[in-house]
Parts: sequence; C-alpha cells; structure tokens
Amino acid sequence: MGDVVEILDTTLRDGAQGEGIIFSVRDKITVAETLDELGIAWIEAGNPGSNPKDMEFFRLAGDLKLQRAQLCAFGSTRKKGIKAADDPQLQSLLEANTPGVTIFGKSWDLHVTEVIRVSLEENLDMIAGTIAFLKQEGRIVIYDAEHFFDGLKANPDYALNTVKAALEAGADRIVLCDTNGGAFPSAIGAGVRAVQESCKTNGNTSFLGIHAHNDSGMAVACSIAALQAGCGHVQGTLAGFGERCGNTCLAALIPSIELKLDRPCLLPGRLEHISKLTRRIAEVANVSIPDDMPYVGIRAFAHKAGMHADGILKISRSFEHVDPALVGNDRRFLMSEVGGRSAIAERVKKLDPAVTRDHPITAALAEKLKSLEAQGWAFEGADASFELMVRRELRNRAGNRKGADSFKPLFTILAYRVVSEHPTGETIACSHAWVKVLVDGKDEIAASEGDGPVNALDGALRRALTRFYPELEKVRLSDYKVRVIDGKDATAARVRVLIESTDGVNTWSTVGVSEDVIDASRAALVDSIEYKLIDDIERKFKAYL
Amino acid sequence: MGDVVEILDTTLRDGAQGEGIIFSVRDKITVAETLDELGIAWIEAGNPGSNPKDMEFFRLAGDLKLQRAQLCAFGSTRKKGIKAADDPQLQSLLEANTPGVTIFGKSWDLHVTEVIRVSLEENLDMIAGTIAFLKQEGRIVIYDAEHFFDGLKANPDYALNTVKAALEAGADRIVLCDTNGGAFPSAIGAGVRAVQESCKTNGNTSFLGIHAHNDSGMAVACSIAALQAGCGHVQGTLAGFGERCGNTCLAALIPSIELKLDRPCLLPGRLEHISKLTRRIAEVANVSIPDDMPYVGIRAFAHKAGMHADGILKISRSFEHVDPALVGNDRRFLMSEVGGRSAIAERVKKLDPAVTRDHPITAALAEKLKSLEAQGWAFEGADASFELMVRRELRNRAGNRKGADSFKPLFTILAYRVVSEHPTGETIACSHAWVKVLVDGKDEIAASEGDGPVNALDGALRRALTRFYPELEKVRLSDYKVRVIDGKDATAARVRVLIESTDGVNTWSTVGVSEDVIDASRAALVDSIEYKLIDDIERKFKAYL
Repeated sequence: MGDVVEILDTTLRDGAQGEGIIFSVRDKITVAETLDELGIAWIEAGNPGSNPKDMEFFRLAGDLKLQRAQLCAFGSTRKKGIKAADDPQLQSLLEANTPGVTIFGKSWDLHVTEVIRVSLEENLDMIAGTIAFLKQEGRIVIYDAEHFFDGLKANPDYALNTVKAALEAGADRIVLCDTNGGAFPSAIGAGVRAVQESCKTNGNTSFLGIHAHNDSGMAVACSIAALQAGCGHVQGTLAGFGERCGNTCLAALIPSIELKLDRPCLLPGRLEHISKLTRRIAEVANVSIPDDMPYVGIRAFAHKAGMHADGILKISRSFEHVDPALVGNDRRFLMSEVGGRSAIAERVKKLDPAVTRDHPITAALAEKLKSLEAQGWAFEGADASFELMVRRELRNRAGNRKGADSFKPLFTILAYRVVSEHPTGETIACSHAWVKVLVDGKDEIAASEGDGPVNALDGALRRALTRFYPELEKVRLSDYKVRVIDGKDATAARVRVLIESTDGVNTWSTVGVSEDVIDASRAALVDSIEYKLIDDIERKFKAYL
Repeated sequence: MGDVVEILDTTLRDGAQGEGIIFSVRDKITVAETLDELGIAWIEAGNPGSNPKDMEFFRLAGDLKLQRAQLCAFGSTRKKGIKAADDPQLQSLLEANTPGVTIFGKSWDLHVTEVIRVSLEENLDMIAGTIAFLKQEGRIVIYDAEHFFDGLKANPDYALNTVKAALEAGADRIVLCDTNGGAFPSAIGAGVRAVQESCKTNGNTSFLGIHAHNDSGMAVACSIAALQAGCGHVQGTLAGFGERCGNTCLAALIPSIELKLDRPCLLPGRLEHISKLTRRIAEVANVSIPDDMPYVGIRAFAHKAGMHADGILKISRSFEHVDPALVGNDRRFLMSEVGGRSAIAERVKKLDPAVTRDHPITAALAEKLKSLEAQGWAFEGADASFELMVRRELRNRAGNRKGADSFKPLFTILAYRVVSEHPTGETIACSHAWVKVLVDGKDEIAASEGDGPVNALDGALRRALTRFYPELEKVRLSDYKVRVIDGKDATAARVRVLIESTDGVNTWSTVGVSEDVIDASRAALVDSIEYKLIDDIERKFKAYL
C-alpha cells in the first residue's frame, strides 16, 4: 500500500453552498454520522461566524460519538485593520470548539487588491497572524490557499509568498484551491510541484492538499493529478454537492485512490459501504444522485449493448474497470433490443435457476422482447413488468408441458370509464372514473375522483381491488412518466407510460404502451398491482419453507 | 489559434447504449440536424448491421442538408473465418452509404482470446483486412482501437501491433479507446506518446484520436490529456449519454478546447449556441441534462455564497473561469434574481426593437417567468408559447398606455368534455370529445373521436375552429411529450406537456402545465393554434407593407 491520503469532506460547508442544498441542524448531525461511518479523517462542518445554524450544530456536536473523523470549523483570515485576537469571526471559530480549524486566505493578487481591497503586504500579515493566533489557541490549522492556481498564473512570486507565510506561521496543512474550477490537471500538477520546490528548504512537515471544483468537468482528475504530484490531503463532498458545478465528488474519487493508486484513505473495510452511504447523504439533502455517477450510481455497472453483456459473462473484467462489489454496487443487465440472450438468461435465472443462455425459453423471451420493443415497449426502466412477462412465459410453458394451469391473472378489469369534464372551459380540470373488476368469480365496482384522468382511474381500480387484497391500501405511485414513442402522428401516436410504485418498503417499476395515454396507464397500473400481489404471495410462501 | 480538433459525436450510436436513451428514427434526424447546427465534423449515426431502425435512418439521411458534419456508420471488424467481402455486417455498413465508416477492433489480448476467441494472428488480419476492404470501397475509415489502454498495460507489444496493422491497412484515423473508462489521464497521455513513438516511422499521415468513458469520472480530463499529448480527434456525446457512466461529455469538453487550449473545433461563432443545442438534444431524448453540467447546466454560473456574488459584481473573472456568454449560458445569483434579463431582452427585441435589458417590460417578464417556472412551466423547448406570453404582455402594456384594447385571444373555449371508455375492459381504447368555442361573438360546437383523449380533444377543437379559420385545416401535431414535474405525488403531480405543431412549412412548439394531463394538453393546444393564427395575420400584414 502507498502513503495514506487524508480526506476532508465539506458537504456541510461548501456542499451547502450548492443550489437547492439546505440542511437542518438535525440533517447536519446525520450527515456527520454518515461520513464518520465511511471512515474519513476530517469533516468540515460549517462556518460558525457567518451562520447561526452552524453554531448550533457545533454546540450539539460535542455529544457526537465519532469513530475516526475529526470536526473542523471554517472561516477566513482576520478582517483588515484589526488584530486576530480582536476579530469576532475568529472568536466564533474558537467557540465552535473543534480540534481543527480551516482558514481561507487570498493567493491571487487580483482578489487582494480588487475584492478585499487591502495591500499585498497586509494580506500576507492577515494570513500569518491568523494562523499564528489559532496555533497559539491549540488548534490544528488547515490553510486553504483560495484561488491558488489562478494566482500562480497571474503573479507566481506573490502566490508562492502567501503559501510561505502560512507555512512559516505554522499551518498544519496547506491546501491549494482551484476555487473557480478552471484549471486543467496538468496545471494542478505543475502548481503542486512549484510549491514543493519553492518551499522545500524550510523543513516544515506540513503537508499539501488539493481543493478542486468541477466547472471544467475535471475536479476528480485534478485531485488525482495533485496526489500523483505528491499531495496527501484531498477536499471534496461525498456526493459532489457544491457551488455552481459542485466540488470534487469524493464518491467518484475515493475508489480510484484506494483501488488504483493503492493508497488507503478510509477505515479498512469501509469502501464497500460507499454506494449506500453516498445515497444516504443525497437522501438527507432530498436530492437524487445522478444515475450515472461513477462507481456508486445505479447505472455505473449497467450493461446495455449485447456484446458487452456477453463479454461480461465470459470474463467480467473484460467490460468492467473494477468489481462492483468492491464499492457496494451491483451489476445490471438492461433488457433492450441492443442487449442479448446472455442478459436475458441472467435475469430469468433468478426465477428459475435451470434456465441458461441456450434454453428454449431464453430464445422465446428474446423473440418476444424484440417484437414488443418494435411496438414501443421498453423494459429498461420497468423491471417488474419484465419479471411478470417472464413469469407468464414460464408458467405457460410449464402448463403446456405438465397439463397444469397456465398463467392466470389475479384479477381482471371487466370495464371502465374515465371522464374529464371542463364545463366552464379553460379552468381547472375535473376527472372521475369507475372500474369494474373480477376476482375469483366475484365482481366489484368502485368509483373515484382525481386530479386528472389517470389519478382517477388509479383511485377507482385500487378501491375496487382492496376488498379482495387489503394489502393494496399501502401501495402508492411514486413516479409517473409518459413518452410518445414516435412523434410522427403526435397525439395519435403510441405513448409509453412508466410507473414507479412503492408500499413503503419496496419500490418497483412497470410499463404500459398504447395509442391512448389512459390505456397505457391502465396497463402499467395493472402490472404494478399484479407484481405486488405475486411478490407478497412468494414472500409468504418462502416464510413457510 | 492552435491546430484544429476534429469532433466526432456518437450520441446516435454509443449514446443510444445509455440506459433510458431511446431514439425514434425521427428523433435521430433531429439529433443529427442539431449536431450539424453546432458545426462539428462527424456524426456517428448508428450500427446498421445490428439495428434495423438505424438502417432506416441511413436511408432517410440521404435527404439531410448538412452544413458541415459528415455521417459515419459504425460496425466491427469482419467475423472470424470469412473474408471481409463476404461479411453481411460489412455489407450493411456499405449500404448505409455514408462518407465515413467507424470500425472497432480488439487491442487487448484478453478480449481476442477470451471474448471473441480467435488467435492473436487472426485478429490482426481481421483488423487489416476489414480496413483494406473499406478503403477499397472508397470510405474514410475511422479505426476505434477498443480497450487500447487496458491492452497496452496487459501486452504492450500486441496492443501496438494492432494499431500498426490498422495504420498499414490505410486507416484514416486511429482512435485510442478507453472502453471501460478505468484509465487515468496520466496513462492516457503516456499511451498516446507510446503510439507516436512506435508508429512514427511509417510516414502515415493518419492522425490520432481519443474515445473515453466516464467510469472514473475523468473522461473529459482524459480527452484533454490526449489532446495535450498530440491527438487531433475526439469522440464523445454532446450531453454525455452513453453506456454505464456515459461517454466523454462534449458540452463539458468543447468549451475547454476552444477557450483554453485555443484550438478550434466548431464552425466559427457556434460555441455560443452550445448550451441551447445540448438542451435540445436532451429534450429530444426526453431526459434532463444535470443542472450542474459544466459550462451548459443552469447552475454552471449560479452563485449562492454572498462573498462570491459580491466578488462577481466587483470583477466577474474573480469567481468565474470563463464568461458565460461565450457558451450561451447565463450568470445567476440565487438570492437576488437578476439573471436571464439580457436573454429576455434579446428575445423581446425581435417583437419590439425598442426594448432593452433595462426596460420595465424586461423586468416584468423576468418576474412573470420566475413565477411561472416556480409552478413548473419551462419555455426552453416552447418558443411559440414564450412569444405569445411576450405578445400578451406587450399588448397589455400598450393598451394601458394608449387607452387601446389590451390583448384579446382570437378564440375562447367555453366548455369541453372528454370521455375514455373501455366497455369491454382490457381491450383497445375508445375516446371521444366535444368542444364549444367562442369566436368574435359567435359560438360553435364540434365533436370528434380519437386514439386517446388528447387526440379526440385536438380533433374536436380544430374542427370547431376551422369554420372561422380554414387555414387550421393544414395544421397537425408533429410531436407530443409529457413529463411529470415532481414525482413525489405521482399521478396527482403536475405534468408539463410539450407540443410541436406544423403546417407543412413552419414548425412551432408550445407548452402547457396542469395537474391534469388533459388540461395541460388543452393549454398547449390553445397556444399552438393561437400562435399559428397570429403568425398568419402578421405574415399577411407584412405582405401589404
């Protein structure tokens, strides 16, 4: 193993500067606990001088039982014209009572003279004086050299002098920041080497870190370049939250550091929790992580092309850069026209282990999939509908073979009617529906109003079925998507409806296709309910084994 | 300016291998036209040998009037054991009748022996024979060296020999692929240099390209590293679509190439359209681009921290790596909404040249846009609805000022009713609608059947209005899209309907939002018809001048 890399997560500070990211104090506690569960070194938890909510967090944080992570509070160098000891912002940093303090200072002469408007000399003194004061107060001081790479380009001597001032004042870490996110990895590497060369003689044991932003889409690569050039500390946010295009996404970076640079940064055994913990943090922030997020996204190991699926099944590393289990993620084969038989067999095996790539049912399913897709069906986002199709096919074949029953649905819709009425023209809608169903020889009719025709139909259908299947009470739709399959005939063209349902514990997705959006929705609703009922039966059956 | 970089976009081929990306043939035509509008060199448009839909696209593509882009079809080296001339897959590539052909071949010995299972020698012959055959047939051959970087690590001599075989057979481009997306930028740079060194003596003028994937979150940086090492051709997808974590996102890469490497890759003046065109391609695929996408995302220049906003207002480059106008994007301040006004003024000017950024109507429209967007409206893909909103606002203000009439719609819907009936349960739908309209004091009622409720409503509405406006006879809907705006409450959530209409000459797009898909469709239909009528009036008026 190579040298340890120290990770600082700033989800609670820089991450909270991202659009739409708002944490309550309770959320912040959960995020801190989650980051500690991952086993990183530092949690930058807020800016107590500028945000009263952050100060409240630090008061409560004293009770946190963390396994490894240390907290640090974030602030800036002292105000111009006063002593560090007299600066109320620095006082509030001390009141946060954390082992570490992060201080940002200016490395770019433009910012010194045009933004904070002090002399170049006073800025050096602001950096040195602030760090010396905090060291005196017993803090571990992490110095963020803001805009370092822009500064190095504009006025290299001055940028390096700010770093020297921080080092000489006793900073424990020097973190080179690409605050605007515009630097290339090559410039990051060169900047790190420039600091090492110009500052190497002073014998200070402080070590160098990197803080990148993703404005050029290269934050992860910039962090890797800095580590390759000799840095030992990386700042970012686990799910990539942050100002503008976000900070370095640590979920995308940490696996590369551990698995490819072979340098440890988490507690041992924690890497396999990174997918789950990243999703938990996104959950707390009430946002979704991108499906295609490297390593941890649900598509990170999803294979669609038939050749890829085929290659994976022969030898997994042929089409996967790492084993998904190492980061707690799963391999998935997408059911589609460009997928192949190997992918289908993989899926069918979960229902019937005897099925192989060359089994006749695999060929039959491939044929069926192809013909359904030609009509506009798509099972990629509709695992539950795919499973029902497989179950029907398996059951029908077993029925033919053994003279047993073939697949029978658990309920049938006998008739339904949906009315959307707007008696006063361009005002709010008014929709209602009735549905008649047949279950086990008994019929039932129910009606419902709704916001729109699909909502009304959904309400009526579930109301009718709940008499027979009370467990449906808990089911609700959690997402609904409509897509026209071919725009040529517009409103008369086929539409595909994708529905996601949940019973509070599990979530499943179904699909329906028709020329009529109501009818397509009906098909997806029927699959959703049928999947839930079959799943419940299977669960009960397994509980008896 | 430095050397030109040739861009190949593979949205229609590798992009279509991304989960959830499904293009109809019509969508593919729109994507190709959009990419050409951006002014790139190559459009890789599909795999005619494996996908019948792609072959249909190539048949229609002959009629496309492209300004710069050339099309290429994608396929693999010949099958084992046969001659290139006898391979049906290569025949279908020729039938696609494109100036260019992309051929992928195996560079990694593991894939040769374990996946496609041929001898290392035959693989070399498959590469050389395929390329020589296609050159003979007069095609520009782009050779994709699949898994090149993994191959270089596993068996460097063999990987380099596959490239030499392709060069010697006459390939016009050699594209080094990091198919599994696992390589670091440093390894990419080293790989490019290895090819340059070992292949430099043969005097071939072919040039080198890069094809990266984002599995390590570094596809953009890998492409930059390849260009810095001497490549002149880059493959990717404009919005980053692609297998697993996606291909190199060209929207994130191209601005860095033009603005920072100072190498041209688009037609002059096109970079400022990249935000709009990337969003259009996402719209066609019915997905959203990430808000934090570098350069083109709506958050790419959104500033939340007070210090940042303050710095920006003093001197914009203090907190922005490039000027957002260069990529057609807007700066936004999240707390104090001042963004977007310049763009609004630009649009309003087309209707009233006197309107500037500081005109009160610009502020009023910005306010209105903000409140509509908060309710889920989006005008990005609905130019006609935006124009109608501006016309209404201009007319109302003019009315107030001069005592003249304010904006009056050309027709009003007095009432309507849509019924979807399925008397026999799960069979084909049957929808009918009636609509009562008021035009100039006269009313008219009409009814229609349709494939689905929206089709029925559209039919009835246009039938009723045709009595007054016979020109509506020619109008038909050419596309129809529905998206749920907030998935939390599923079928009861708000939906946004986007409609594209055409009269055979012009095409225009409108939007409607409601909790009810029928009502949202009604709003978009009304805008579509009103836009057509006003446009006709204006055209006639101008003809008299």
